[in-house]
Amino acid sequence: MIQRVAVIGLGLLGGSVGLAIREHAPGIHTSGFDRDPDVRARAKDRGLVHAVCDRIEDAVANADLVILCVPVGAMEAAARAMAPALPDHAIISDVGSSKQSVAEALLAALPNHTIIPAHPVAGTEQSGPEAGFASLFTNRWCIITPAKDADQQAVEALSAFWTQLGARVEIMDAEHHDLVLAVTSHIPHLIAFTIVGTASDLEDVTRSEVIKYSAGGFRDFTRIAASDPVMWRDVFLSNKSAVLEMLGRFSEDLTALQRAIRSGDGDTLHDLFSRTRAIRRQVIEEGQDDDRPDFGREDHS
Amino acid sequence: MIQRVAVIGLGLLGGSVGLAIREHAPGIHTSGFDRDPDVRARAKDRGLVHAVCDRIEDAVANADLVILCVPVGAMEAAARAMAPALPDHAIISDVGSSKQSVAEALLAALPNHTIIPAHPVAGTEQSGPEAGFASLFTNRWCIITPAKDADQQAVEALSAFWTQLGARVEIMDAEHHDLVLAVTSHIPHLIAFTIVGTASDLEDVTRSEVIKYSAGGFRDFTRIAASDPVMWRDVFLSNKSAVLEMLGRFSEDLTALQRAIRSGDGDTLHDLFSRTRAIRRQVIEEGQDDDRPDFGREDHS
Repeated sequence: MIQRVAVIGLGLLGGSVGLAIREHAPGIHTSGFDRDPDVRARAKDRGLVHAVCDRIEDAVANADLVILCVPVGAMEAAARAMAPALPDHAIISDVGSSKQSVAEALLAALPNHTIIPAHPVAGTEQSGPEAGFASLFTNRWCIITPAKDADQQAVEALSAFWTQLGARVEIMDAEHHDLVLAVTSHIPHLIAFTIVGTASDLEDVTRSEVIKYSAGGFRDFTRIAASDPVMWRDVFLSNKSAVLEMLGRFSEDLTALQRAIRSGDGDTLHDLFSRTRAIRRQVIEEGQDDDRPDFGREDHS
Repeated sequence: MIQRVAVIGLGLLGGSVGLAIREHAPGIHTSGFDRDPDVRARAKDRGLVHAVCDRIEDAVANADLVILCVPVGAMEAAARAMAPALPDHAIISDVGSSKQSVAEALLAALPNHTIIPAHPVAGTEQSGPEAGFASLFTNRWCIITPAKDADQQAVEALSAFWTQLGARVEIMDAEHHDLVLAVTSHIPHLIAFTIVGTASDLEDVTRSEVIKYSAGGFRDFTRIAASDPVMWRDVFLSNKSAVLEMLGRFSEDLTALQRAIRSGDGDTLHDLFSRTRAIRRQVIEEGQDDDRPDFGREDHS
């Protein structure tokens, strides 16, 4: 049974894990560490975990479960730093957006521990210790990607833990996870970062015009493109092959639409635009988005 | 003075114009027409305008201002249909998303009338007569694109009208409008339509997976990609050169990022991702989006 959880990294995800435990699993004791002393102080102020520790070793010393909530590229160093103090029985997990590279990094750092990588598919554009909230995982999917020879009891304990925090759990192999998330998360972010960059660098349209008229669609991309730069740099570098594969397919499709526009082929455009509407309905039926217009930005009633 | 307004096309935009007049300018009488009898019946039920007419001629017969709220590709036919009944003094305007082509179409249909094209930069992914609401234009920009020799009094009357509905008004030439909107609206929509199409056609990731894990970013694109297919087909066909120009720049930037990912150039990624955050802050400062995380989809407090 998981009775003590250590949260390493006290930003949006780490903070939300701490707060969700406090709300949904009040019997669990939480400790936490962040390498930034300022973040530790703010985490203490908000009470993100019961005990904010100044040393990573102290945070993990009695943990049944350690959840790494640091950027993917920082996982291995954090795992190495905690290694000497880690109880033998502790389960090591994480919340990273790419799973093959994290599994390799954690295995390299902690070859004798039980490593069960996981990825709660949830987040906002905010980051830092003020950004977390207890309901971040409610009704969201948490994908657990155990290795083939993983300890089944540990997988079940981690599944039960995430279910307790309000998430729905799916088990998937890491390679498939990385392909799925390249489509549903990484490419959308890459595209949003790109178009926001493109729009802010034009010479014939000013940045102030781009901002003023952003309600035509652009503003939605600015939200995604406001996500944490370090986290996303690491995601793209760590899930390189799936991202490049999916980017290739996207670019092919975009080229086909470009050709349709150039040749005035309205039927091709209309056919695609009709199909994409149906996907939206399914996203809402699945409970993965708000069905109010504009995400309920304003009260439209 | 504008005392009688005819709204042609009673979908999201036309319905919102009618409801906004009712709320913000209750002294103005509104008539309306839609070529779909079912839409007319539903518009009557919701009271989108004071008088829903079965013939376009009846809707415009006494109008001081006619606002065409039909897809850009349908503007010319609608203008021709109303021509015989149009009062000489009536101002003809519209809400279309591309302005050069609309100006040409309206001028071809109504060579002897006062034509002042306009574009309120506002909308949602919903369409049809149930989708409109009175506050759609509140704090949004309405871009008016008069020809160089336009009647200045008519421009002022139309500006005052949109200001009364809660919008902020900007005067711009049509060519520049089309370039600005290509960046802030048309390309974001094209990209969203494309990625939603790409994601739903993969063989190695199922559509059900795409939908389940859409909270990682994809769901935002599905919202935009749920917009009206006919409207958007017409936008791309009517603003072809600006769209292709901006699409070329976007593709160049995407290729540069692709190369950075392939070569593991984290600094290039981090630099871009840091710059795009600043744009988001400016969009919020400008009052063009909600500063709550996730657009305030849920209560995160």
